[in-house]
Amino acid sequence: MDNIFILKELLNNKEIFETIINRKNLKIERIISTGQTTPKGTWYDQEKDEWVILLQGEATLLYSDHSAIDLKAGDYLLIKAHQKHRVTFTSVDPPCIWLAIHGNLAQN
Amino acid sequence: MDNIFILKELLNNKEIFETIINRKNLKIERIISTGQTTPKGTWYDQEKDEWVILLQGEATLLYSDHSAIDLKAGDYLLIKAHQKHRVTFTSVDPPCIWLAIHGNLAQN
Repeated sequence: MDNIFILKELLNNKEIFETIINRKNLKIERIISTGQTTPKGTWYDQEKDEWVILLQGEATLLYSDHSAIDLKAGDYLLIKAHQKHRVTFTSVDPPCIWLAIHGNLAQN
Repeated sequence: MDNIFILKELLNNKEIFETIINRKNLKIERIISTGQTTPKGTWYDQEKDEWVILLQGEATLLYSDHSAIDLKAGDYLLIKAHQKHRVTFTSVDPPCIWLAIHGNLAQN
């Protein structure tokens, strides 16, 4: 058994992506952010839908239509495949702990 | 956007199962337990694997080999399809908030 809140690695000012489950059509991932943001001018444009929940910390997500979403612990949302988005803020203390599920999740 | 920690329903001493995402081969579900346990002598015996994380509260899981696992907030584990299990304890205050992902998750 593991615990999502326990940080084993030294964070060293880098974002950490850890795969928890990796199957053909589904990936469960923990992401630890400590101040990192998506590089300016670039966007995430993903092949799969992503259901993501912020479990610790605070963060801001920006969509390409310029709508911004402030996230606090427990907030979750579905980012559809190819829905361009950027992370414009992540808290350092406490670190952001994200749980992300990647797959075919959106209703047709 | 929703928040996994916000309880909208009156709990009324019953366990609450809420579907967040429901696709052909994948279901994401929130479960709220407030003292409920699996009826004595019965076991969960599920067709799908279940990845489950306890996000709030404390709980105890029992496998059919009599091994018991005490869970606290943040603990997660994979229960394979047909791995018989029971919940023998769930905390009332705070209520248990579980996030469960049902699908084909185990490595072959």
